Amino acid sequence: MKMEKAKLTFLGTGTSQGVPIIGCQCPVCKSGDPRDKRFRSSAYIEYGGLEILVDAGPDFRSQMLCAGIRHLDAILLTHNHRDHTGGLDDVRSLNYIDQRPAEIYCEKPVVKALEMEYPYVFAKEKYPGAPEWHLHLIRNKPFFITPNDPDNKLVWLSGQGYCQQRKDGTIIPTDDNKIDMAEEGYDHTGKGVKIMPIRGLHDKMPVLGFRFGNIAYITDMSHIPDEELMKLQGLDHVTLNTVSYKQHHSHFSLGEAIEMAHRIGARHTWLTHLSHVFPVYEKFCLELKELSPDLDIQPAYDGLVIE
Amino acid sequence: MKMEKAKLTFLGTGTSQGVPIIGCQCPVCKSGDPRDKRFRSSAYIEYGGLEILVDAGPDFRSQMLCAGIRHLDAILLTHNHRDHTGGLDDVRSLNYIDQRPAEIYCEKPVVKALEMEYPYVFAKEKYPGAPEWHLHLIRNKPFFITPNDPDNKLVWLSGQGYCQQRKDGTIIPTDDNKIDMAEEGYDHTGKGVKIMPIRGLHDKMPVLGFRFGNIAYITDMSHIPDEELMKLQGLDHVTLNTVSYKQHHSHFSLGEAIEMAHRIGARHTWLTHLSHVFPVYEKFCLELKELSPDLDIQPAYDGLVIE
Repeated sequence: MKMEKAKLTFLGTGTSQGVPIIGCQCPVCKSGDPRDKRFRSSAYIEYGGLEILVDAGPDFRSQMLCAGIRHLDAILLTHNHRDHTGGLDDVRSLNYIDQRPAEIYCEKPVVKALEMEYPYVFAKEKYPGAPEWHLHLIRNKPFFITPNDPDNKLVWLSGQGYCQQRKDGTIIPTDDNKIDMAEEGYDHTGKGVKIMPIRGLHDKMPVLGFRFGNIAYITDMSHIPDEELMKLQGLDHVTLNTVSYKQHHSHFSLGEAIEMAHRIGARHTWLTHLSHVFPVYEKFCLELKELSPDLDIQPAYDGLVIE
Repeated sequence: MKMEKAKLTFLGTGTSQGVPIIGCQCPVCKSGDPRDKRFRSSAYIEYGGLEILVDAGPDFRSQMLCAGIRHLDAILLTHNHRDHTGGLDDVRSLNYIDQRPAEIYCEKPVVKALEMEYPYVFAKEKYPGAPEWHLHLIRNKPFFITPNDPDNKLVWLSGQGYCQQRKDGTIIPTDDNKIDMAEEGYDHTGKGVKIMPIRGLHDKMPVLGFRFGNIAYITDMSHIPDEELMKLQGLDHVTLNTVSYKQHHSHFSLGEAIEMAHRIGARHTWLTHLSHVFPVYEKFCLELKELSPDLDIQPAYDGLVIE
């Protein structure tokens, strides 16, 4: 069976504080090379006709503007840390353009955290212009994303929650629950696109990576269980996170990332979630060639497109 | 008595979605004039030897980098809406540089909201690298900000909360409460700088503006009570928010802002929190001259310095 090809644009490749760090005077933070300017990690994936974002950190608005993205079919969240979810207020412009909620896919602990951290999004009486989210729960199984269907809108009605609005304007109340299960294992519309979640650990916190056909996007992991590595075979591209040369409690060290790249064996490995401890872009490329002469491992940079 | 002069740099002058809005194709959002690119509203004030930020929205990191700011003595919050508080995670770099918590001044309802929206900042067991805040409660009275004293550090000790660390390294536990009252009405250190809070309403939500000597910074108001206007006499500069020509539930309309500018009667009025409904910068300047030929009212823009 032919594997569907994805195209991934790195919107951000920086660690939680980004690069440069406010106030830092190190050579990397002061570099004039645009490839050393790193927004918080996020990726835009075009796959199966859909436009998918992974993570919406505090730079979400700037990233959407820089990349000229005007529509998203889905936002997937890897985990609930502010550098990956801090921009979810800014989906309001997409709500306005698409006249429907943003479709957000994540695991249950992320929903719980979002409920606490964005109480005004979940309020019964929302203030005018508050963000509209439609949450889909990911369980640790492949799931399908279906394109927004303008003839079958999901609309938020005050006091009724989300309702389906049919072509003819009929409103069909749902169970007043704005959280749906992500559709698993089959494509009930005939138009869905299958996504494979990859389980990893970020220190002790479970996080998800995602496989889109020939590309897998992994960030914020310090451990990937062996059984998950089975899902990462035959890739053209994989991303892996690293923040330091030294052992780190919640991220792969550079050495661990290189070792993991070899275990996965994708044709190309792209390092992301990078910090200012690594050298400026061109030096870092050379260093990686020396450290891994037999397998292509390169630093990603903001704006880089892989396919 | 001679009034101390302040210097204010607009770090952001845009409404809650910023300008341009993601995906918008209107002439303002597509303008090539950098003065039409507006981060979320925020201002940096140099006053009495201190560096003070008002509001830290989602663009906080980008704004600090654009302006080259490397240190803050205080962050004042006008109110708890995400476009004014969404960047408070990113004070971590300042924590690192200054080796002390960020000094944050706000009213009690803002503290309550921050406790909910940033639970990991208030956790007893914080994860490594979490932001460090030291909150000061503002009551509706003048208060003093004192410069960070490197010889009298406030340090966070796990399980003990904030403690004073003296020159000789001695640790003095506080009452395990990281919220202090902002010092009111007198300067107990002899080094403090007096700030006058200005009460206003943002729809029904109480918000604060701030007067720094000859400059007052007002944003996100739809009403200023008469007794507060008394505090805004004799100003060189005042900022006022407006988002639309039409009546708005939580912001001054343009007409209301112009009327308020005349009531305040500062030498210069700068409009901020602007949206894309107003024309491109140069046209808007001309329009304001026609609407207010006898009083200087201009649109602010990101990077503008007034003093």
